Amino acid sequence: MARLATRLTERLGIAHPILSAPMALAGGGALAAAVTRAGGLGLIGGGYGDAGWIAQEFAAAGNTQVGCGFITWSMARKPELLTQALAHKPAALMLSFGDPRPFSAEIAAAGVPLICQCQTLAHVRQAIEAGAAIIVAQGSEAGGHGASRATLPFVPEVADLIARESPDTLLVAAGGIADGRGLAAALMLGADGVLAGTRFWASREAMVHERHHAAAIAATGDQTVRSSLPDIARQLDWPKPFDIRVSANAFIANWAGRDAVLKDAIATEGPAYREAFMAGDPDKAAVIFGEAAGLITDIPSAGEIVERMVAEAAALLGGAQRFLA
Amino acid sequence: MARLATRLTERLGIAHPILSAPMALAGGGALAAAVTRAGGLGLIGGGYGDAGWIAQEFAAAGNTQVGCGFITWSMARKPELLTQALAHKPAALMLSFGDPRPFSAEIAAAGVPLICQCQTLAHVRQAIEAGAAIIVAQGSEAGGHGASRATLPFVPEVADLIARESPDTLLVAAGGIADGRGLAAALMLGADGVLAGTRFWASREAMVHERHHAAAIAATGDQTVRSSLPDIARQLDWPKPFDIRVSANAFIANWAGRDAVLKDAIATEGPAYREAFMAGDPDKAAVIFGEAAGLITDIPSAGEIVERMVAEAAALLGGAQRFLA
Repeated sequence: MARLATRLTERLGIAHPILSAPMALAGGGALAAAVTRAGGLGLIGGGYGDAGWIAQEFAAAGNTQVGCGFITWSMARKPELLTQALAHKPAALMLSFGDPRPFSAEIAAAGVPLICQCQTLAHVRQAIEAGAAIIVAQGSEAGGHGASRATLPFVPEVADLIARESPDTLLVAAGGIADGRGLAAALMLGADGVLAGTRFWASREAMVHERHHAAAIAATGDQTVRSSLPDIARQLDWPKPFDIRVSANAFIANWAGRDAVLKDAIATEGPAYREAFMAGDPDKAAVIFGEAAGLITDIPSAGEIVERMVAEAAALLGGAQRFLA
Repeated sequence: MARLATRLTERLGIAHPILSAPMALAGGGALAAAVTRAGGLGLIGGGYGDAGWIAQEFAAAGNTQVGCGFITWSMARKPELLTQALAHKPAALMLSFGDPRPFSAEIAAAGVPLICQCQTLAHVRQAIEAGAAIIVAQGSEAGGHGASRATLPFVPEVADLIARESPDTLLVAAGGIADGRGLAAALMLGADGVLAGTRFWASREAMVHERHHAAAIAATGDQTVRSSLPDIARQLDWPKPFDIRVSANAFIANWAGRDAVLKDAIATEGPAYREAFMAGDPDKAAVIFGEAAGLITDIPSAGEIVERMVAEAAALLGGAQRFLA
């Protein structure tokens, strides 16, 4: 199998410049370990913070080196979760959706590389101040939470900013990347690697209901939308500018433009939403995937996903000279 | 100077796979001819349709081969403009924002290649039915009118659809592409070339007020937004799903969430908007650029823009084997 070498593979000591997103609920130890075993780096989704869940998923990863990621504003309410995760000596600690600076000293003291996921240039400047080893520039096409910039122009603009202000910081592209074409494109844009969410969400090791997987396979990339409705239904207090990209399903259509009505009815709608989500109902609760769903037609193992991405990207990059006349 | 060869350069008989967007008002004959002379293909912006303007701009292009593009729903109200444009024997005729099928027979009869710009997969299917020679997959990060898909995942999904249903149709990527990194990335994603708007809007030959140019240079890519407000102010009856990406300036902030108020006040606000736009006021009317503004730091000639894009892309593509370990 081909290998792809970048500053990211060198820095992290991995074979391929591919990280799996630390997806809350969906990305556990089995998925993270599978990505690492395939030559990338898998990240456990620390999510909204449950100490028992984090312990269980690090245990599930076994002796395989994995990282861990947190939703920063949520972890900030229970900072002991960060301490707990660092005790597992993760390969990297990723923070997204909130100011990373209050936590950088503890992470540095643990000797763990800090990855900061950023959705705006202001976030990038915070990440540089926090001493991030790796910045993930996340575009709006990503599934799950994010903001409004698009990956293709955001990545080179972040690359230029990093080159000026912190050239040793590495850059990873996220949002809309599900195959070797997206990986090769990201490297051309100036990234040192990619972080993929939706593609690994649609793997056998992800903790995702099979009906949700079926919905993603059936969907085109046109059938997703950014919304605040799933967070209202879950009573999750997400700060601005973040919302969540999900399937444009009946739940979204039913409540479109009626945020206040959903809030007022939360005593009954909240439990109904949670029940529908747990049952894998693809219509009555959010199904969390991004525009890359349009590039996904199967649910392979995470290892096969890594292999395919690398093989396709290596063929494209190795053959790129054909465009030179 | 390096050359970049793709199916697009072969089909159109040009040196580089770079088209300039047919930008209403901003893209006239001088810009289109400059892009063609540099080895790409320039397109005159037929816009909302003014026969005198179109004649004048084809004259400005002189003997240089250029194409022409229309806003389809607007041109459909004055289809004689299409006949007029075809009489100039354009190198290509581009249709965007509306169903191209009613016009494809006339374009084919004139022996002119049809370019269809598409924002959804449904648009792509219409374009294939219309017999488009070239499909432009336009992402939401583009300046000016567009819809919601992001370039990076949209282009490969369109590439897959075209490969299945119409493999001889060529594919061009648009939205967020302003330099050689974007061009090289687009080729990796499966495009045969790129169409750039904002980058050529920010050229000496574009018909753009210098204060608007200054606003684009000052802006980061974070400082744009998609909105319907400029079209309300101009009383342009744009159909769904289209809106326009513009600078997130004071005009947008002032009217945010107050579409109806602006409509009610149009008798005074309409003329005030128009006057501010013509005066180049960067605060009181829309300034039309996309996220790629964050990659733009100067206003060079269009020819220099083409040269820079090609040189940078050639270096990246020629060196892409360095990623193979």
